Amino acid sequence: MSTQIAPDVVEHVHETARRARVAARELALLTRAQKDSALVAVADAIDDGAADVVAANAEDLRRGRERGLAENLLDRLTLDEERVHAVADALRQVASLPDPVGEVVRGSTLANGLQIRQVRVPMGVVGMIYEARPNVTVDAAGLGLKSGNAVILRGGSAASSTNAELVRIMRAALEAQGRNPDAVNLLTEGGHDAGRALMTARGLVDLVIPRGGASLIRTVVTESTVPVIETGTGNCHVYVDASADTEMAVEVVLNSKTHRTSVCNAAESLLVHREAADRVLPRIMERLAAAGVTVHGDRAMEGYAESAGAAHVPVTDEDDDTEFLSLDLSARVVDSLEEAIAHVQEHTSGHTEAIVTADRAAARRFTAEVDAAAVMVNASTRFTDGGEFGFGAEIGISTQKLHARGPMALPELTTTKWVVEGDGQVR
Amino acid sequence: MSTQIAPDVVEHVHETARRARVAARELALLTRAQKDSALVAVADAIDDGAADVVAANAEDLRRGRERGLAENLLDRLTLDEERVHAVADALRQVASLPDPVGEVVRGSTLANGLQIRQVRVPMGVVGMIYEARPNVTVDAAGLGLKSGNAVILRGGSAASSTNAELVRIMRAALEAQGRNPDAVNLLTEGGHDAGRALMTARGLVDLVIPRGGASLIRTVVTESTVPVIETGTGNCHVYVDASADTEMAVEVVLNSKTHRTSVCNAAESLLVHREAADRVLPRIMERLAAAGVTVHGDRAMEGYAESAGAAHVPVTDEDDDTEFLSLDLSARVVDSLEEAIAHVQEHTSGHTEAIVTADRAAARRFTAEVDAAAVMVNASTRFTDGGEFGFGAEIGISTQKLHARGPMALPELTTTKWVVEGDGQVR
Repeated sequence: MSTQIAPDVVEHVHETARRARVAARELALLTRAQKDSALVAVADAIDDGAADVVAANAEDLRRGRERGLAENLLDRLTLDEERVHAVADALRQVASLPDPVGEVVRGSTLANGLQIRQVRVPMGVVGMIYEARPNVTVDAAGLGLKSGNAVILRGGSAASSTNAELVRIMRAALEAQGRNPDAVNLLTEGGHDAGRALMTARGLVDLVIPRGGASLIRTVVTESTVPVIETGTGNCHVYVDASADTEMAVEVVLNSKTHRTSVCNAAESLLVHREAADRVLPRIMERLAAAGVTVHGDRAMEGYAESAGAAHVPVTDEDDDTEFLSLDLSARVVDSLEEAIAHVQEHTSGHTEAIVTADRAAARRFTAEVDAAAVMVNASTRFTDGGEFGFGAEIGISTQKLHARGPMALPELTTTKWVVEGDGQVR
Repeated sequence: MSTQIAPDVVEHVHETARRARVAARELALLTRAQKDSALVAVADAIDDGAADVVAANAEDLRRGRERGLAENLLDRLTLDEERVHAVADALRQVASLPDPVGEVVRGSTLANGLQIRQVRVPMGVVGMIYEARPNVTVDAAGLGLKSGNAVILRGGSAASSTNAELVRIMRAALEAQGRNPDAVNLLTEGGHDAGRALMTARGLVDLVIPRGGASLIRTVVTESTVPVIETGTGNCHVYVDASADTEMAVEVVLNSKTHRTSVCNAAESLLVHREAADRVLPRIMERLAAAGVTVHGDRAMEGYAESAGAAHVPVTDEDDDTEFLSLDLSARVVDSLEEAIAHVQEHTSGHTEAIVTADRAAARRFTAEVDAAAVMVNASTRFTDGGEFGFGAEIGISTQKLHARGPMALPELTTTKWVVEGDGQVR
């Protein structure tokens, strides 16, 4: 770690974590019905306080404009009353999801008569470090509550007034329900040091989830001594195989790249088998051109882009590893399935990789050999999503291999405990 | 991190990891039959090479004696031919276990027709950092192979000759089977720097498992930037409730403390409800005395120990947090179940906690409120073990909440991948 964290910030964070631990022990024992009614009460309180939230948000926006915050960040920061009600509704949706706590994952009776069962239990205290979007504040609190965890939130400074108001409303609503308000905590002081104190509060915090850009995630992974789940870096590829159906290839590439460019499951790279190039690329390039995509292509790809009138630049080695999150796409023609797989293996961020193919063997090989949270056959990369997978709300997409991989929903916010019952058995 | 790691050591470890990655990709595609026959071939080779292993071990023992290694460490280091055959047999047992790779954990068909399934796949490259016992070298390689992972082993320097010989035999046997020998790698150079290079080889190594004393584990957790699973620190308590059956309490306490003192699932602390003290403690102390246990007791416990002729010293605050791994036991009389739970919550290392009780409500409350990998009701703490739970060989007992908690067997050495199959679906 580069510099010392201010001792008063450490003490503030540790004190918050100790209070959160007390709340977490209470939360762990609540029934589903108790948690759901708390969630609905919190949702109602957010609806009732929508005007206050919008007013707090206006302060953040004013400050953001003064500081020259980029327009797209201002947009992500903005909450009008309609968006506030959508945030509250998301909590009601969480209430409607099954409770992961108490699920018996497996169990058996041993030869000596001991009955063992592995039961889902809450993690305890979960830290979230995230950037602009204030809806994450409510989503994280709601998923935390439902999974029996107390949360400590460290949101971006750009949203500080909005986050403070949302957390004030949620804590008051919990208290009014007779629940411990320390189930939801916001770190408002200490700047970056508060985040660093949170990720080093070993023994006080059970898990830290960073949600944001690559540099935030890198910092948390490097500095944290608390277990971390990495989320959300997606350098996703679409590989169009020799046998791909033309129409399907066009639609999957277009949807993966352009349906929403700023998200982690958007495609950033296109690979096309040389044998399919003449057949599929004129159509793909035409559509990419119409969508305003700039192709970062190898010589062959630049040729197809040029012919179709698509913007193009030569692809660089750096482009191969870049998550553009914009209307940019790196693109290469490959000579074989093997070359495509090798390229993906080298440059994947482990999020989502897709193949478009009519060849059963190629599909089997691609899904077996590509090492990522999700591998798609003949489907858009945009489907890697908790909502799309039918899990309801998600806390993020894990791109690491430990604990959770892919969409992280409620069960991924729990751990397990072995409960062993006997009649005095000894070894 | 305190000091720079020598660049040549970093390069050696990274080069090893790159070769391991190539082997891991091959391993991931092997069938169970292929992996099992490789395991059996490796076991046969170890049997055949037993004399060479024992000779290499003799070198380690000679060096250890010269350096004045403690007798118990020399004992843990020793391999005679019989122990070598037992190590080989453990591999055959791993071969007989089901293959976790390919298991479909869950799956469904979405409304749009996409078929999704979550499939177990290997982690990839797993690092193990461990101390004296050379059988860990073979166990880790065997569990790695079976779960489709390449392993990079960093054993203790005391066992360096034995480990080198075991790994030489295993690699040769793999090669003779037409398998990539880089599935099993031993870091022989670079001293502690090799371990540090391993735990910071982010992107090259998928998981590091430290197995050893508390200070080794602390170092790995603090310095590692690769995901870590903590194993094996057990400050286990046995709480004898007011309603406990006397005979059962005596047997569970004795077995938990004295069956084997040097292991992580041995009890280190005894709590007895005041109402049961006069009834159970004279018998417990008598048996502890006979077993040679020194009681670190509060005033009441010291009184019972004194009367029964058991060795005793006053308990200190430090004792409450000490994993003795010896014939020592901290012991306190408590006034209530609540006090017992609070004490356990404060001092648990999250491994195994036991209650002895005839009271159903007390058992339910203890199992619900105590936060540990395993909670025992009327059973010895010694049962938290992969073998006892019926999982076969284990790589360690995880005391953390992320990914695996409790005995870590083959499935815990895997991650999952979502495979999504469609017919051109887009959003």
